[in-house]
Amino acid sequence: MISTLHAAADDLRAGRTTPLDLLDACLAQIDRMEERVRAWVFVDREGARAEAERRTQEIRKGDWRGPLHGMPIGIKDIFDVFDWPTAAGSRLWKNSIARQDATVVRKLREAGAVFLGKTVTTQYASFDPPPTRNPWALGRTPGGSSSGSAAALACGMCFGALGSQTGGSITRPAAFCGVAGLKPTYGRVALAGVVPLAASMDHPGPMARCVRDLAVVLQVIAGPDPLDPSAADVAVPDYRERIESGIRPPRLGRLRGLFESRAEPVVREMMDRVCAQLHAAGATVVDVALPAAFTDVLIRHLIVMAVEAAMFHEPRLRRHPEDYDPNIRGLLEEGLRRSPTEYARTKEHQRLLKKEMEACFAGVDALLTPSAAGPAPDAATTGDPVFNSPWSYTGLPTVCFPCGRSPEGLPLGLQVVGRAWGEADLLAVAVWCEDVLGFPLEEPTV
Amino acid sequence: MISTLHAAADDLRAGRTTPLDLLDACLAQIDRMEERVRAWVFVDREGARAEAERRTQEIRKGDWRGPLHGMPIGIKDIFDVFDWPTAAGSRLWKNSIARQDATVVRKLREAGAVFLGKTVTTQYASFDPPPTRNPWALGRTPGGSSSGSAAALACGMCFGALGSQTGGSITRPAAFCGVAGLKPTYGRVALAGVVPLAASMDHPGPMARCVRDLAVVLQVIAGPDPLDPSAADVAVPDYRERIESGIRPPRLGRLRGLFESRAEPVVREMMDRVCAQLHAAGATVVDVALPAAFTDVLIRHLIVMAVEAAMFHEPRLRRHPEDYDPNIRGLLEEGLRRSPTEYARTKEHQRLLKKEMEACFAGVDALLTPSAAGPAPDAATTGDPVFNSPWSYTGLPTVCFPCGRSPEGLPLGLQVVGRAWGEADLLAVAVWCEDVLGFPLEEPTV
Repeated sequence: MISTLHAAADDLRAGRTTPLDLLDACLAQIDRMEERVRAWVFVDREGARAEAERRTQEIRKGDWRGPLHGMPIGIKDIFDVFDWPTAAGSRLWKNSIARQDATVVRKLREAGAVFLGKTVTTQYASFDPPPTRNPWALGRTPGGSSSGSAAALACGMCFGALGSQTGGSITRPAAFCGVAGLKPTYGRVALAGVVPLAASMDHPGPMARCVRDLAVVLQVIAGPDPLDPSAADVAVPDYRERIESGIRPPRLGRLRGLFESRAEPVVREMMDRVCAQLHAAGATVVDVALPAAFTDVLIRHLIVMAVEAAMFHEPRLRRHPEDYDPNIRGLLEEGLRRSPTEYARTKEHQRLLKKEMEACFAGVDALLTPSAAGPAPDAATTGDPVFNSPWSYTGLPTVCFPCGRSPEGLPLGLQVVGRAWGEADLLAVAVWCEDVLGFPLEEPTV
Repeated sequence: MISTLHAAADDLRAGRTTPLDLLDACLAQIDRMEERVRAWVFVDREGARAEAERRTQEIRKGDWRGPLHGMPIGIKDIFDVFDWPTAAGSRLWKNSIARQDATVVRKLREAGAVFLGKTVTTQYASFDPPPTRNPWALGRTPGGSSSGSAAALACGMCFGALGSQTGGSITRPAAFCGVAGLKPTYGRVALAGVVPLAASMDHPGPMARCVRDLAVVLQVIAGPDPLDPSAADVAVPDYRERIESGIRPPRLGRLRGLFESRAEPVVREMMDRVCAQLHAAGATVVDVALPAAFTDVLIRHLIVMAVEAAMFHEPRLRRHPEDYDPNIRGLLEEGLRRSPTEYARTKEHQRLLKKEMEACFAGVDALLTPSAAGPAPDAATTGDPVFNSPWSYTGLPTVCFPCGRSPEGLPLGLQVVGRAWGEADLLAVAVWCEDVLGFPLEEPTV
């Protein structure tokens, strides 16, 4: 039976389970489903078992490392993990051993996590379809780029995972696979030791099976980092305390515009149902207008992504064009074609929109949109990031979690968007909504 | 014929040579001597030729990248170079491709350097004998750990090279191979993208064939780095201007103590001769006493090196003990055996000695010692770093350059030590001395 991370942590504390038991449960799911789902680049069974054994011994001695003590965690294969290769979906890098942990990986390790292996990323965290399949329907995409993390969580192969988002790479796969994901405020989580896609929009973030679990992992990985100038020196509040202190029924701002016009009927119906349920439970749901600068956010996001990805990849693309899959290659070529003034104008627009978005939060605690335009499409694409890339562009934090199924049984997700640096309030809102909507944890049966 | 970097740069400016000619000269020396000397982990002939061709084209258009435009440079294999593996002498890492340049490598690239390949380092920049041989006597060590950089320079296989020093890893191989090396003030040159040995004493630095060349390379690589908190925010003066503005005959403080008692007779004679020559040319040479805290500097240095090396290597040593050569392994085991209070006491001693060393510079411009206790010993060791490790420990800048030969024809070196952050004055002193001592550039004939 699939459990959440926070429930498993409670069981550990109460002596009802051990890190070795948790690991065995994950490995059993991997044995059962990995051949079809292909969520992992590799699983380090021996290493994970040694660590789980150590964590189990430590508990016997009353020695708890931190909030992730003994939790099997999957790491998206763009994060450096000490002594493991970081391939990022590249054939060139498949034997490139990391000399040290990425900052977020180090923090997870210090908090007691047991690393199971590397989860599949689309190549260079872009749009090319990965080998991973959607565990709810093997002909469908799990979404990308954090494809393996989302699919592994859905199958109960791990209790938490690292993802990252530059377009919609946390929220989209979470929605398609029926799990939860948090894209933090830009600068909240350090990027040192992470393969970049577009540096000013890359957001590492937690993925898990429910919102409370996201809070546990975010608490561990958030914060400034002397190795990463982009990780802001902003204090990290106590997320759990904020969640547990309770929240009055929230005021929610429903976004329409593109979030309605681009949504499939099944998603529009889901939103109407969700808003009615939240309202019935006491929440206020009001329509919120998007600022004028929002109009061309999608094309602007693409320009920033293409130019900044090209900045990192250009020298490698010139030397090894054959290593690049078609979509990332197209993106890079797009970036190389753009003019510098276009990029500069777009960065100006990005600053302006960040500022203008503040007005959307007047009188509401969070904004509400679907996680994706529809359920997972077939495996020839990774789906459309249209409902996510505006938040990667503006750097605002988002939380997504499952809230229903399409008629054919595919997961649908809800996305809440918060103020910059407002993850604590946002998590509290999301927990309130999740409790109301009560999506049960289910296990895919493919 | 072997040329210096600054002379080659003058020839380039005057149109007397091209980057392609300089590269061909280096490759010819590699063809002639590499089989015996083994200075390189690999030479990227194709990549270097493409870069040299670009630099040659750029000159035709009047487009100069910087002070190293078109200069073939060797990179010690502990520095990350984009798209090349960084093995650091480890079998585990031999296919670990670097995703980006180390900060110093990026700076060299931006200054127009042409990277020839990776030069051999002892394993993990420690003491185990490398495959490289001393080009003046193939049965002898080139010194370590920057073995390949020193040997390649001596053979005219490159015009400048990156080295690094934690014990005596720049000065000792420079002395044994008859080339020049500069170990900067700790914090002057950034460590981002460099495999650590002992983080608080690791110093990247330039190696070249004369002191003026060291100034050219240091100018390029020095300075603060947002990616490296240890790289201090201290302004970098114009070294060339300082050197060319001339220096009155310097006041030099000759250090005796261990620098005399541990020196072989041939080195003591060299020092007497050198001091007489410098005095005759107008320099003042006075004896300077070492502070009391200097007494146990060698054992203290070893403690810091062993403990900090173990801090980085411990997890890898546990997983892959078979990958470690005997000397580095012994060092790490030594570090793991030491007590934390011993380390803490040593860090206290290190701070005290840094402070006490200031008094040594009262009334003198620089301190004077031999570069090494003797000429290169046989290839079973990399030689004794006893005259160099005090400066790694105190973080004071040093410059070494060749100043004679032993009766059997092996190079001997002189070392000058400066005030913290005083590289400009130190280089001016060293140039003055080098001009007086007039060691001619020779080519090994093995």
